[in-house]
Amino acid sequence: MSRILKVAAAQLGPVHLDTPRAETVVRLIRLLKSAARQGATLVVFPELAFTTFFARHLFDEPTRLEAFFEHDKDISRSSPTKALFEEAQRLGVDICVGYAEKTPEGRAFNSAIYYSAKQDRVMAKYRKVHIPGTREPLPDKAAVNHLEKRYFEPGDLGFQAFRAPGKRQNADGAGDPILGMLICNDRRWPEAWRCYGLQGVEVILCGYNTPAYNPHFWGTSKAMSPEIAKSTAIAQHKLVMQANSYMNSCFSIAAGKAGLEDGQYELIGGSCIVGPEGQILAEAATTDDEVICAEIDLDECRQGKEHIFNFAQHRRVETYRRVVDQVGVTQPDS
Amino acid sequence: MSRILKVAAAQLGPVHLDTPRAETVVRLIRLLKSAARQGATLVVFPELAFTTFFARHLFDEPTRLEAFFEHDKDISRSSPTKALFEEAQRLGVDICVGYAEKTPEGRAFNSAIYYSAKQDRVMAKYRKVHIPGTREPLPDKAAVNHLEKRYFEPGDLGFQAFRAPGKRQNADGAGDPILGMLICNDRRWPEAWRCYGLQGVEVILCGYNTPAYNPHFWGTSKAMSPEIAKSTAIAQHKLVMQANSYMNSCFSIAAGKAGLEDGQYELIGGSCIVGPEGQILAEAATTDDEVICAEIDLDECRQGKEHIFNFAQHRRVETYRRVVDQVGVTQPDS
Repeated sequence: MSRILKVAAAQLGPVHLDTPRAETVVRLIRLLKSAARQGATLVVFPELAFTTFFARHLFDEPTRLEAFFEHDKDISRSSPTKALFEEAQRLGVDICVGYAEKTPEGRAFNSAIYYSAKQDRVMAKYRKVHIPGTREPLPDKAAVNHLEKRYFEPGDLGFQAFRAPGKRQNADGAGDPILGMLICNDRRWPEAWRCYGLQGVEVILCGYNTPAYNPHFWGTSKAMSPEIAKSTAIAQHKLVMQANSYMNSCFSIAAGKAGLEDGQYELIGGSCIVGPEGQILAEAATTDDEVICAEIDLDECRQGKEHIFNFAQHRRVETYRRVVDQVGVTQPDS
Repeated sequence: MSRILKVAAAQLGPVHLDTPRAETVVRLIRLLKSAARQGATLVVFPELAFTTFFARHLFDEPTRLEAFFEHDKDISRSSPTKALFEEAQRLGVDICVGYAEKTPEGRAFNSAIYYSAKQDRVMAKYRKVHIPGTREPLPDKAAVNHLEKRYFEPGDLGFQAFRAPGKRQNADGAGDPILGMLICNDRRWPEAWRCYGLQGVEVILCGYNTPAYNPHFWGTSKAMSPEIAKSTAIAQHKLVMQANSYMNSCFSIAAGKAGLEDGQYELIGGSCIVGPEGQILAEAATTDDEVICAEIDLDECRQGKEHIFNFAQHRRVETYRRVVDQVGVTQPDS
């Protein structure tokens, strides 16, 4: 009657501006096989897993920018990405993976999809809601750009939890696991987690690319030391994964990129798997390609969901109006 | 031009069922004087600071229960509590303190007030919104009751940020600090923090009484070891203080009770002061009466509020509807 799953985060070392897509797919498949060998049946890959984190660059040539996007409607069926999904099918492993999506109408999203091996199809899609950074390049020449607002529009699919078919370990008809996807900066917004928590989410899947430096102060005299900037970024990443998992009584799997991308821009790594009491169950030890696994019992979500975070008993939505009535800040009068 | 404040959390060791109120007030005054000697001009005291955490007991006799409540409309003017406020006035220190409030109409709230020394009056009141525990005693004889739902109704004042008069250190007319109060369990609900964050809050003041045991499993064979239960409770307390301070780019001051109340029920202590990057600036070293202080620069909130958590630029309220439209959980279909 238990609801135990073996899950994995596949951390990816650096991918560079000119790294061929096919070469990266080979690395992703190697990680997938390693996870499967360890018994994992659900693997989470990073945000924008097939390319470098290209939003740190301003591209004058449109064709140069377009090359980082996937233009096919179903990347599980088109080259070179389809090889990853074919391997997942062969191994019977579900995967969640992030990519830059360009729709037939030319709209651009920072997306993630969930591929079900049992159904042999992409059964859920998420488009990143919280797009960080700026639209225009930063005026400070020493800063590192973070042009996500220029290259992506905010996701238009909301936060739709879904059940992973055939992932329950028991035969008694109990529900399949309830999953939800987030991408990178989304994990810092408690509203996003709560929208999933209100759907009973049991596992949050989150890919990310997080700089080890502060983009605004990179290389300037205002910079904190690189060591402190990096350790702060890692601590804040884990802090939001742990706290939001705890406050929604769910597991979470965070898979990041790591190391020096494009030869010089460091990403934090720090991939981790977190439990519903906020505890870290597994975390990456390297800043390169690495698989981490954990066996998780979904029923461990129940202690929190039924007691301290029993939403039906304790939430007071009549006091939360500001959360949706107001986008920005309105200060009390001086 | 700086906006530097010296603030303190006054942790309180155990208060027992029969401890006279006047005796506890003497201890609170001793803590207040110690904080003032260290230069603090704002001191936060625990939830229900004048009594034991009486909600762990079922009282058959109504008069026994009533004795734990303050019945006077302004406890800063009535005995024996007024001695604390008179000392705060003498020292020029603002205080935030929690107490059990019984209104003239007989309504019961778990409340906190903010006393301004400059104005010599209680200038803000907060009534705890998230009332944990149960209304009826737990059926398991080995459990510890947590009857807050029986003894208090949910606060009806919402989350109203306010400015502390005369607390700015500069003379240029810049705004006084923006403060908000939470009580105990409230700190685990990100909606509460966000309602304050949307008012530009710079310091959250939070008193608490947090058991070091799991009330549902206390003393039963289902119990985890007391050491693990306690360290988990402390870790989760700090986790929510740190993460919610970070996600709202604000400081926070958490003042708890500590040690064995009523001779046997352990509270975690763990009072702490947290910065807007989620870092702990000061924390209690004991499980008894103890003052911790920190010098905080309110302008350090700006880095977060202007960039990564710039709400006006990044929040997507159209995707957050569930947060207010739905109290409890609605799961996706199996």
